[in-house]
Amino acid sequence: MATQLTKEELLAKAKKPSADALELHPFYRGKVETMLKCCVRDFSDFAIWYTPGVAAPCKAIQADPELVYQHTNKWNTVAVISDGTRVLGLGDIGPKAGLPVMEGKALLYKYLGGVDGVAIMLGTKDPDKIIETVKLLQPGLGGVNLEDISQPKCFRILDTLRAECEIPIWHDDQQGTATVTLAGLVNALKVVGKKINEVKIAFIGCGAANVAISRLIFAYGADPARCYFVDTKGLLHKGRADLEARQAEFVDKWKLCNISNAEGRTGGIAEAMKGVDVCIALSQSGPGVIQKEWVASMAKDPIVFLCANPVPEMWPWEAKEAGAVVVATGRSDFPNQVNNSLGFPGIFRGTLDVRAKTITDEMCIAAAIELAKMAEENGLTPDYIMPTMDEVDIFPREAAAVAMKAIEQGIARITNVTFQQEYEYARKLIMRARGMVQDAMATGYIALPKGSKPPKPSRMVVKAVAAATPKPKAKQPAKKTLKPARRAVAKKKSAR
Amino acid sequence: MATQLTKEELLAKAKKPSADALELHPFYRGKVETMLKCCVRDFSDFAIWYTPGVAAPCKAIQADPELVYQHTNKWNTVAVISDGTRVLGLGDIGPKAGLPVMEGKALLYKYLGGVDGVAIMLGTKDPDKIIETVKLLQPGLGGVNLEDISQPKCFRILDTLRAECEIPIWHDDQQGTATVTLAGLVNALKVVGKKINEVKIAFIGCGAANVAISRLIFAYGADPARCYFVDTKGLLHKGRADLEARQAEFVDKWKLCNISNAEGRTGGIAEAMKGVDVCIALSQSGPGVIQKEWVASMAKDPIVFLCANPVPEMWPWEAKEAGAVVVATGRSDFPNQVNNSLGFPGIFRGTLDVRAKTITDEMCIAAAIELAKMAEENGLTPDYIMPTMDEVDIFPREAAAVAMKAIEQGIARITNVTFQQEYEYARKLIMRARGMVQDAMATGYIALPKGSKPPKPSRMVVKAVAAATPKPKAKQPAKKTLKPARRAVAKKKSAR
Repeated sequence: MATQLTKEELLAKAKKPSADALELHPFYRGKVETMLKCCVRDFSDFAIWYTPGVAAPCKAIQADPELVYQHTNKWNTVAVISDGTRVLGLGDIGPKAGLPVMEGKALLYKYLGGVDGVAIMLGTKDPDKIIETVKLLQPGLGGVNLEDISQPKCFRILDTLRAECEIPIWHDDQQGTATVTLAGLVNALKVVGKKINEVKIAFIGCGAANVAISRLIFAYGADPARCYFVDTKGLLHKGRADLEARQAEFVDKWKLCNISNAEGRTGGIAEAMKGVDVCIALSQSGPGVIQKEWVASMAKDPIVFLCANPVPEMWPWEAKEAGAVVVATGRSDFPNQVNNSLGFPGIFRGTLDVRAKTITDEMCIAAAIELAKMAEENGLTPDYIMPTMDEVDIFPREAAAVAMKAIEQGIARITNVTFQQEYEYARKLIMRARGMVQDAMATGYIALPKGSKPPKPSRMVVKAVAAATPKPKAKQPAKKTLKPARRAVAKKKSAR
Repeated sequence: MATQLTKEELLAKAKKPSADALELHPFYRGKVETMLKCCVRDFSDFAIWYTPGVAAPCKAIQADPELVYQHTNKWNTVAVISDGTRVLGLGDIGPKAGLPVMEGKALLYKYLGGVDGVAIMLGTKDPDKIIETVKLLQPGLGGVNLEDISQPKCFRILDTLRAECEIPIWHDDQQGTATVTLAGLVNALKVVGKKINEVKIAFIGCGAANVAISRLIFAYGADPARCYFVDTKGLLHKGRADLEARQAEFVDKWKLCNISNAEGRTGGIAEAMKGVDVCIALSQSGPGVIQKEWVASMAKDPIVFLCANPVPEMWPWEAKEAGAVVVATGRSDFPNQVNNSLGFPGIFRGTLDVRAKTITDEMCIAAAIELAKMAEENGLTPDYIMPTMDEVDIFPREAAAVAMKAIEQGIARITNVTFQQEYEYARKLIMRARGMVQDAMATGYIALPKGSKPPKPSRMVVKAVAAATPKPKAKQPAKKTLKPARRAVAKKKSAR
């Protein structure tokens, strides 16, 4: 467990990123920009990229629409689309106020997954208009990441679009969170030596995230009858008349009423947690949402996921004091961060690379298992069940796992690729993206905030400069003395 | 006049960009990509760009929506939107096949104007859906460039969106072409010593371009009564029953029937051109659309714009042989290229920089005059009435002219900026965009086609490498002999 900071210290620490963000967002005025990826050797190249030359690829695509994946950047473009109705924990702040988040997501797509994220904010909250607009935007996109759309409409939007679109549609608040949470659960169960099909699980909070998490966990082997769901009105069960009355709207929750909680427990969080092996909370910002005695009432060796943002439902040390063996949160300042960013960049990388038609639950499970495996290879402990974002291999390995599953399921349009090939291809794309950013900082195209030192230019840049630097001429005074010295300097440079 | 190539030579030459395009489009698989524009010093920076820090700018924008221009890239983002119904001269090839063109346009926006172009293809041809979708996409955009949308719907789409959107909407096939053509006409008239309000003009072709060109030329001072318009059915005049019957659909053309051709000429191109001073043709690919004798029938010192693509309505040398003094085309292999790329990057740069609410005809005229002025400063001749795209100053000067006009007209939201300040700001943004591309080629992030040599890294890059290269240590053998040599090398490097 990390140092036990007081609430005051934690809150002070939590304020630092906000202060930095308010200073640095206007410093950069945007987190992503458009960059050329083709050569402009001179202005005559515009005859290739624009009229008249461009007509040739246009005609080729007209004759065979699949060629759009060869002649354009469609293959690598994912739109991050939101209406701003449920942004982070901030609620319905609208599409303009949500843009910094979607730009941030586009940034993560590129830096972590080598995917060209494009932020698109929609000026409507109407689910039918959102559905129609996303469908209309398809021709230029390789995929869509829905983000921060309020529930319950987000379920219907995702389900409809997955059924009706020709490109993969992803709702990160559902599928992304579910994938990463499953990875954590898989390893947490290993730590305590329990089996997925035997454990009882209490889901605290019944929003888009927990509904999606439960679906994936059931697909992975958990028994719905042994699971308990708590929403703002208490435990879900067959007698929940309020949900029965609105079952058309709350399709998934009403389904959960019927398949979960075989015992027919009633009550609230306390009753849901009694005797269960796992608690997965994604409810409301804490602390104090979950009590220590409720954790103490769980089965032996409790696993507790406290994933509300910005503050977990209870402080992790409280959960530990109450007997929890594995505690995970959504925060980077505690061990076991369950972080969506561990999922979507690699999952979409693999999906795009084999041109999968959709992203299935099985592909999500494949990603979760690969993610879990990476942490396991490093050695699992109660405080290390998840790899961390800076472990670069996460993303290409997930990409490869996802790609292989898509091929196996027959939904990939590119099938002649092995795990190793996809891993290497994905890694190359990701490392290129990171390298570009590092070198842009090193060379000044990305300015640095006051007090920050630029990183060193990459070897690629150093070599390019060396190659363009005129070699010393042969005829110079003191030739013999000077030559070895020059060589030494040159060698030093190329060794970086 | 350029070397008089035969038709066969011209066709052979015209094939080269197509062949290159078919080879190089799949080589790059896209012309633009997403690039980070903010620092990632380490992974903890994600707490600034994404959760939790990003919540602070979100809340700031929620409180004051105008702050979206400070905290995000909205200020510099222009969506290039098309339904693919009238792509280049290819007709209705659909949104997928049109994507290479819109990506090319995004490329030109960035390279020439420092504007972040984003290609968006719409999977609908319905004008009402196009209008609604563009409106819904506004929150994340600084402006919209409509492109390659068929007429007559393009007129209503543009007019409706200009009236109802809060961001500037531009249809390059109308306003862009009009701006650049006006610039050419202004200088052509100087060459022959005629005045805009006195000349007779024949417009050959009555599509979106010529309708828009005439509107701008009228606004600049030409007399509609002295102008003649020819569509596929002949001269426009008050008796054109076909257009009267469909006047709701062809609003602009029916208006032209009523205000142009005071003489009531009937017939076709031959009749329209008789005795006129200027012929502006944007009709169909030639040659042979316009006959030599028709040019010969024009007034003294004829001006002939032959702007059909890919082949002009008649070969320029034919026009010259028939007596034309100034001949312009849309092609880069003849003098006087009337090229949209001379317009939109600078016009949108200036529009975005003063956050103008729309782009008025007066702003277009300001850009045209600035463009004309640049060529005039270089010395006008019959074969040089337009600056060429490689004259880097075009774009910041246009930007400044456009920005000043927007401020003067009271539609700019940023008003405390002078011509010189905007010129310098725009130039800096544009040079940064170009520098990034050159350095990406120099350092290998943009691969080069076989046989092409990378450019040299910029001074910025060379300096960054020098700064990161460890200085030679003081204590070394043969110190005194070596020092001067090292200094010489270092000096050479920093001088690039």
